[in-house]
Amino acid sequence: MVTQQEQYDKARKVMPGGVNSSTRLLRTTGTPFYASHGKGSRITDVDGKEYIDMCCAHGAGLLGNAHPAITKALRKATEIGYVNAFETVYHEELASIIVDTVASADKVRFCSSGSEATLHLIRACRGHTGKDKIIRVEGHFHGYHEMIYIGGHPPKPEFPRNRDQPYIESAGIPQQFAGLIIPIPYNDKEVLKEVIHKHADETALVILEPVNFNCAGIRADEDYLQLVRKLTAENNIILFFDEIQTAYKNSFQAAQNELGIIPDVTTIGKSIGGGLPLSAFCGKKEVMDGFSPVGQVEHSGTFNAHLIPILAGLAFMKEASNPDFYSTLHSFEKQFHSGIDQIIVGNDLNMVVPNFGARFNILLGRKTPARNYGETFCHDNQILLSIFKDCLDKGVFFHDYGGGPAHHGYSIQHTPEDFDYVLQVLEEVLIKHRDRF
Amino acid sequence: MVTQQEQYDKARKVMPGGVNSSTRLLRTTGTPFYASHGKGSRITDVDGKEYIDMCCAHGAGLLGNAHPAITKALRKATEIGYVNAFETVYHEELASIIVDTVASADKVRFCSSGSEATLHLIRACRGHTGKDKIIRVEGHFHGYHEMIYIGGHPPKPEFPRNRDQPYIESAGIPQQFAGLIIPIPYNDKEVLKEVIHKHADETALVILEPVNFNCAGIRADEDYLQLVRKLTAENNIILFFDEIQTAYKNSFQAAQNELGIIPDVTTIGKSIGGGLPLSAFCGKKEVMDGFSPVGQVEHSGTFNAHLIPILAGLAFMKEASNPDFYSTLHSFEKQFHSGIDQIIVGNDLNMVVPNFGARFNILLGRKTPARNYGETFCHDNQILLSIFKDCLDKGVFFHDYGGGPAHHGYSIQHTPEDFDYVLQVLEEVLIKHRDRF
Repeated sequence: MVTQQEQYDKARKVMPGGVNSSTRLLRTTGTPFYASHGKGSRITDVDGKEYIDMCCAHGAGLLGNAHPAITKALRKATEIGYVNAFETVYHEELASIIVDTVASADKVRFCSSGSEATLHLIRACRGHTGKDKIIRVEGHFHGYHEMIYIGGHPPKPEFPRNRDQPYIESAGIPQQFAGLIIPIPYNDKEVLKEVIHKHADETALVILEPVNFNCAGIRADEDYLQLVRKLTAENNIILFFDEIQTAYKNSFQAAQNELGIIPDVTTIGKSIGGGLPLSAFCGKKEVMDGFSPVGQVEHSGTFNAHLIPILAGLAFMKEASNPDFYSTLHSFEKQFHSGIDQIIVGNDLNMVVPNFGARFNILLGRKTPARNYGETFCHDNQILLSIFKDCLDKGVFFHDYGGGPAHHGYSIQHTPEDFDYVLQVLEEVLIKHRDRF
Repeated sequence: MVTQQEQYDKARKVMPGGVNSSTRLLRTTGTPFYASHGKGSRITDVDGKEYIDMCCAHGAGLLGNAHPAITKALRKATEIGYVNAFETVYHEELASIIVDTVASADKVRFCSSGSEATLHLIRACRGHTGKDKIIRVEGHFHGYHEMIYIGGHPPKPEFPRNRDQPYIESAGIPQQFAGLIIPIPYNDKEVLKEVIHKHADETALVILEPVNFNCAGIRADEDYLQLVRKLTAENNIILFFDEIQTAYKNSFQAAQNELGIIPDVTTIGKSIGGGLPLSAFCGKKEVMDGFSPVGQVEHSGTFNAHLIPILAGLAFMKEASNPDFYSTLHSFEKQFHSGIDQIIVGNDLNMVVPNFGARFNILLGRKTPARNYGETFCHDNQILLSIFKDCLDKGVFFHDYGGGPAHHGYSIQHTPEDFDYVLQVLEEVLIKHRDRF
């Protein structure tokens, strides 16, 4: 047994920051959360302390830890011999389920990460339209790569300049790539019209999260999405929904199906692999058939659509298509959100907890949901970090995302008793900090 | 049971080309190879026909199919609960092995694919140097993304223009990305000196494969690599070895250790996951600590360093560190290469089969190894496709790579009898086609 601090000291000798993902250093504790094991809704750290997991792998853990269906899938992979870099009948079976449940999906391709999915699909949009620029929405997130990690989340001092000089979100991204990005605010029809009018001839795609999980759970106005759909269609611009967070979170389909706004192409990920590394991109036939060997857009890779995540994905789909699955998640949703809303109203807290299905955000500093990224600067990251630190001390793990108003959630293996306890902890902790927000 | 053609017809209704990787459509047969299962050195297709696998997942399958050590790793992952998006002690353990066995590795990060590895590490090189351009070698391969999928493999008619207008290798990559790429021929010291002299102030990195597996197994001259090392060091340019193919292929270390030329940073992948999707990037502390949360270069992702591939990676390392492992592979190497060389000499065939450890290339049209990409145009893809088609018919699977002189290999689970049979088939088939090359 080691302590978190001891493991951190060992790990950062051989890995930058002791982690394989920048966000895994918790600002609440000053160390990463080194896990020893997980079961159902619970995660146990190397110190032996158990927590209720309210991160659930950033949305990938909708089945929770150690789900029997995944255990079975791993056993099956072993029997088949996990034939790496070969296609199997299971690939086609999983693709067919996605075609049936994501409205825009005529055809599908699989890869490992969400970043890979947006990278390849952006390339296909450019290939299809012969245009290069990307209209993106502030506060939305679409992966950690040079095509799109620009102009999404400028810090407050940079925000006023973001539309003229899109903010580059990582060191090492050449300045000139920012010239391909056109950031817009969410839910602003006038800016949308102006930008499309001005840039239609050079714009390949408009990309957005239909529910902006990565910022503050911001919903689009229905007429805004309708206008996006109309203007993109009229101007030979591909409408790209990034549903890596939203698909299969509220029902056995994508958010686009529920919203009734059908984009041209879509990325999906997180939950579809049942907790294993699997993402996908899909869309209309005419765009997807741009990919080689049919068309001229490259998408290759030894590890694309590895059999083990594909089998785990089929296991997830089988579980999620069971009628009890989403009714159970919705009962959790009702319990948790009516509980937290009562705490907010009863204590007159200056915060909102918007959600879409089994994922939610926590935004401090306002009593109504934000409508765009600019409206989220009321949120104070330091206060949320204090709140999450106290939750951690009481055995509830929220991922801190540096304190940002980002996304949290739960799994099918959580229990009503878990939510009772989480609500009790949140009430105590929020009341303790109420004078700060 | 379905036929390959029937499965192809079903699969391409829902996936472009019926596959998840462009190269998985075999030009030899006109369909992809849909696998039903694999065991050891053998792979069986959906028709029930068994083949000796001479692709081995493009180098990821050094353990072969269904290796007991991987079965055990998958069982362990199940017991731990495959805690997704958390770090564990196993991450640090695997990173430490890489630090011990890759000479340039002070620190390591893990991701899923080789393309992700080069993408993130190129970003770190730019962040560290504050420069943007990339000097790359023609014929070398470093992943399917906009940072580097330019100028590597121009078709013959485009080749003469490649150094002035680097050839963009996929539709959908904006033209301006080519302006960041400076292609050079391998093993040409004069061009290297000129290019570095001219572009030192704007060049972040020189990237290359120390053995150019992706083209024709081309080795670098020792004094060429020494000069690359010297000039990059003198000019604040990072030397980047892409060892995704070479690391752990000939010994329990990277090729750089064997060659005695130590770059600043390195990508590794393929075999390190034991057949599961795992890649890594590593390098000197001062570059790697550019990554957040230590520095300002982003590398995040839910699926980075997933526990299941990490445990499979540890299983691979345990197997490969057994003294018998590489001595067995070297006995296969001796058997196969002395056999194929006898066939070549005995039949006066106009071809070479260069190798580095357990991976080899087949280059037609010349009797000495090529020294750069330009020297490989003697190779006729159509002839190699005919050869591989005949091998397939006789139960030996070579991946066709469109007929290119690319890489093939074998696993620790292959047997001397496998190589006897493969050599017998190759002799028959090569003699049949000998008048064509």
